[in-house]
Amino acid sequence: MLRFYLAGPEVFLPNARALGEAKRALCADLGLSGVFPLDAALDLGGLGPREQGRTIYRADVSLMRRCDVIIANLTPFRGPSADVGTAFELGFMTALGKPAFAYSNCAESFIARLARFSPSGLHRRTDGQWADQNDLAVEDFDMLDNLMLHGALAEGDLFLHQAPAGRELTDLTAFEACVKAARRLIA
Amino acid sequence: MLRFYLAGPEVFLPNARALGEAKRALCADLGLSGVFPLDAALDLGGLGPREQGRTIYRADVSLMRRCDVIIANLTPFRGPSADVGTAFELGFMTALGKPAFAYSNCAESFIARLARFSPSGLHRRTDGQWADQNDLAVEDFDMLDNLMLHGALAEGDLFLHQAPAGRELTDLTAFEACVKAARRLIA
Repeated sequence: MLRFYLAGPEVFLPNARALGEAKRALCADLGLSGVFPLDAALDLGGLGPREQGRTIYRADVSLMRRCDVIIANLTPFRGPSADVGTAFELGFMTALGKPAFAYSNCAESFIARLARFSPSGLHRRTDGQWADQNDLAVEDFDMLDNLMLHGALAEGDLFLHQAPAGRELTDLTAFEACVKAARRLIA
Repeated sequence: MLRFYLAGPEVFLPNARALGEAKRALCADLGLSGVFPLDAALDLGGLGPREQGRTIYRADVSLMRRCDVIIANLTPFRGPSADVGTAFELGFMTALGKPAFAYSNCAESFIARLARFSPSGLHRRTDGQWADQNDLAVEDFDMLDNLMLHGALAEGDLFLHQAPAGRELTDLTAFEACVKAARRLIA
């Protein structure tokens, strides 16, 4: 049975485990094995904080190596872009040659999000590039986030769904579409 | 000669090329070959925006595969965490088994940064976890960013330097310390 690594910032939610179960159940209905990062049963007792973090890191890396596909939740997290942990995992699985699929519960374009996070809006730099209030270039490639993330996707695009306010990290509409497409393409 | 891939959000600066040259010169002084993401000479003429983005993605992936080590600039970028493109590249190189080193020009702890970006500060959730204003857990592992990023570092830590205001993406103090440590450990 194909193993899907379910990456995303929902691990930070109070109900992370329940959401993980819902994602796994959805995969199971499609004949797939969903692997949620919290699935590793870890004994962190007696470890200092740094060593706890390292132990979780090693467990997640080990889970990724034993999965066949990554489904990354690239919903913006604490800023205009995706969660950095998820970005790391997307890069990791891509380098291993494992197919990568992604979704976002925010349907707003990247450039619109960047404009919203730039208090004075965007402007044209003297080199012709669009830039934010710190004169940092904003990418204008018709992509849904940084080009390294978008470039890695097998489908060439994200699966998008505008989740209702408050459900940005819990809505599974786009997740389901993404998993079904991945299954159709590779299972 | 060992090839160091120089990842970081400074590619978005107006003077990105000059900064890349400064980083490469510093590597050359140490007998190393520094490879900056903009080094790929690309002809993007006639391509639509999406295909331009993909072409840059493929060029950067190809540069990474031909490098031996990654030096990642994990200075916070448009939020409390590192640039997602750099996080992707750190994951990519880690999966290939290439040693990863990193630095940040912000010496503030991750938890202090998260508190600063959370308008009402941090609080203890009912499950005992520290959390931000959206009740999303903040990591408390004595690490400098998301544990996947910090966990990947060969040195087990970032090289830190508090850059003066306005020089957060251009100061090379921590970069130099990081490259020297990497050279000592693996060259």
